[in-house]
Amino acid sequence: MKILVINSGSSSIKYQLFNMPSEEVICSGIVERIGLKNPKVKYESKDDKIERVCRISDHKTGLEKVVKFLLDDKLGVIKSTSEIGAVGHRVVHGGSDFSKTVIINEEVKEKIKDLFSLAPLHNPANYEGIIVAEEIFPNAKQIAVFDTAFHQTMPIEAYKYAIPNKFLEEHNIRRYGFHGTSHKYVAEQAIEYVGKEKSKKIITIHLGGGCSITAIKDGKSVDTSLGFGPVAGLIMGGRSGDIDQSIIFHLVNNLGYKLEEVNNMLQKESGMVGLTDGLSDYRDIEAEAENGDEKCQLALDMAAYRIKKYLGSYMAILNGVDVIVFTAGVGENSIPMRRMVCENMEFFGIDIDVEKNKMKARKIEEIHSDTSKVKILVIPTNEEVEIAKQSYQLIN
Amino acid sequence: MKILVINSGSSSIKYQLFNMPSEEVICSGIVERIGLKNPKVKYESKDDKIERVCRISDHKTGLEKVVKFLLDDKLGVIKSTSEIGAVGHRVVHGGSDFSKTVIINEEVKEKIKDLFSLAPLHNPANYEGIIVAEEIFPNAKQIAVFDTAFHQTMPIEAYKYAIPNKFLEEHNIRRYGFHGTSHKYVAEQAIEYVGKEKSKKIITIHLGGGCSITAIKDGKSVDTSLGFGPVAGLIMGGRSGDIDQSIIFHLVNNLGYKLEEVNNMLQKESGMVGLTDGLSDYRDIEAEAENGDEKCQLALDMAAYRIKKYLGSYMAILNGVDVIVFTAGVGENSIPMRRMVCENMEFFGIDIDVEKNKMKARKIEEIHSDTSKVKILVIPTNEEVEIAKQSYQLIN
Repeated sequence: MKILVINSGSSSIKYQLFNMPSEEVICSGIVERIGLKNPKVKYESKDDKIERVCRISDHKTGLEKVVKFLLDDKLGVIKSTSEIGAVGHRVVHGGSDFSKTVIINEEVKEKIKDLFSLAPLHNPANYEGIIVAEEIFPNAKQIAVFDTAFHQTMPIEAYKYAIPNKFLEEHNIRRYGFHGTSHKYVAEQAIEYVGKEKSKKIITIHLGGGCSITAIKDGKSVDTSLGFGPVAGLIMGGRSGDIDQSIIFHLVNNLGYKLEEVNNMLQKESGMVGLTDGLSDYRDIEAEAENGDEKCQLALDMAAYRIKKYLGSYMAILNGVDVIVFTAGVGENSIPMRRMVCENMEFFGIDIDVEKNKMKARKIEEIHSDTSKVKILVIPTNEEVEIAKQSYQLIN
Repeated sequence: MKILVINSGSSSIKYQLFNMPSEEVICSGIVERIGLKNPKVKYESKDDKIERVCRISDHKTGLEKVVKFLLDDKLGVIKSTSEIGAVGHRVVHGGSDFSKTVIINEEVKEKIKDLFSLAPLHNPANYEGIIVAEEIFPNAKQIAVFDTAFHQTMPIEAYKYAIPNKFLEEHNIRRYGFHGTSHKYVAEQAIEYVGKEKSKKIITIHLGGGCSITAIKDGKSVDTSLGFGPVAGLIMGGRSGDIDQSIIFHLVNNLGYKLEEVNNMLQKESGMVGLTDGLSDYRDIEAEAENGDEKCQLALDMAAYRIKKYLGSYMAILNGVDVIVFTAGVGENSIPMRRMVCENMEFFGIDIDVEKNKMKARKIEEIHSDTSKVKILVIPTNEEVEIAKQSYQLIN
């Protein structure tokens, strides 16, 4: 069965077509700059790599451009859209309603809409992708895979905030956590790799543009660093991660900032961007740090320090750790970040092998020393294949 | 030399008179409800215990009432105010300017005033206490002991937030930490008790109406849970401790709250009060939990869970821990809280002795098992004696 995986953003649609259950990638690509200047569609398969600039005013036109590639005789992907058995959609926020992947019906769509205010940058775009895919693939099952679903197993002491009870009871204000599809994927890979008995306590560290860390007990998420929204926890590309909330009141009450300026600052101008005066790409930051730029070095130190603190927190609530997993762009590629996080952790039986750490992961790699009690793995994440897998499992 | 220690709050003045360097307490007491209905002055010494209702419209009148006790022939404390060699003032916020206890001069007073916006509930009241004490004890040295000073040894990766650099550089927005006098006092007690070599890594847990936890390396604070203001970190009586900052924006933007309502809610209606629908005293909460009240049980579970996470964080940055210290009202008296924090921590060599834990600390108590690698101590805090000690050391 062919399953199309779609990640619809505010001005982009990422897609990947799988043969399932073999997990073979038939083709993949992205529609970029929808509704902006110079939109583009990219298509890539084993044999072909195409990039085309065209007029794309909305998501529907965007997805239609993708379908044009799929139906193209010369590329030979499919002959009819009815060959697509299912479309798996990444949906960022599933609230407390969705702890599993579901087939999309009217009720599901309503609930995704209800969650717009909790994920204003993501859920509307995800929803748009669903509406468009329903029109273009009327015979396919539409399936929603939520970024929050994996974390719905968290116990209440991990997801509740210490604010008046009504905010949870009446307004669903709680920790949801995100990147769940990625954390679940790499945790399952780790369990398969080291065996169930030796992976009862896993801590997965997802470091990309967004960053989060998850404590996993017996395969289930028990705590995670992203919270009610996608800004808390680790230091991210442009997001601050944890701050003292009193800073917000001080900026507004004493320094004359508008609340929306502060919100924007914490979401876009903070994190690595704020600390380095403008850089967000770890490769650039690491190169500058190597050249003696003190701000870049401090930004890296701070990012590692924050991860280390969370690692400690999660070891405490798990009463130990068997496996630590690094994943996503930075986690898979940043040699210094992994080293900084794991060094000086002998007390916990965590011992990174500096030589083994000097690789960029294409597959599962071990980077702990032979005497390390804790396994340290680098596992390339693959949210698309996870979405395809979950979609396939749901309908078969 | 006689040293008077003063803790001046918005409507109260706590005082304690010491003979130094013997640390003998001559007398102590409090002026309550200054400027409110039914003000009171309390006085207590070895031999006497007096409580008097009188008119007290301002701090000056309040301190004058205290002096009346001190000069009272029958009580026989002092014959003249000039016998008081120094007045040690607790000052909550010393910003980045004060890493040590200082003699108060005009410049120091100006700086304490400059910090009003960072500690609006505390510094103005502390300042008022200084002004009044200068008038009443013109011959005494006036000394400021800052709650933030002990934490000035934190490295930058611990005190800087991941927001644009200008906020630290231009506006001094950083982690300051509080309860420093208490953390310092109990850490020094612990070092003296177990010896310097076996107390290189200490984590002190101050649990009172306000709560904080500090990582201490070689006697110096290297990180602490209170931050820019006194609200972040652990769950406190009425304060939320850490929350996801996006909750603030959601409450204002989507649920129609005013920013000041949110600020007030996070400072006064949250924490244990918010979680238990109104209780802040641990004795009440523990009694209710024992009677089967689920909200009270959850509040306790959440408070312990938060402390556990910070304990893990600080073990991670210290690469271990030699001594854990519980102190302040709840830390010294709550048997269940200490147990919940320390149980299920065998991985770290932390093993609490449930029987030894069943005491209320009047002096330093060990509550770890004989096989615990980590020492767990309960140490009664004494900020007043610490202020007297530091004041005495400074002028001798």
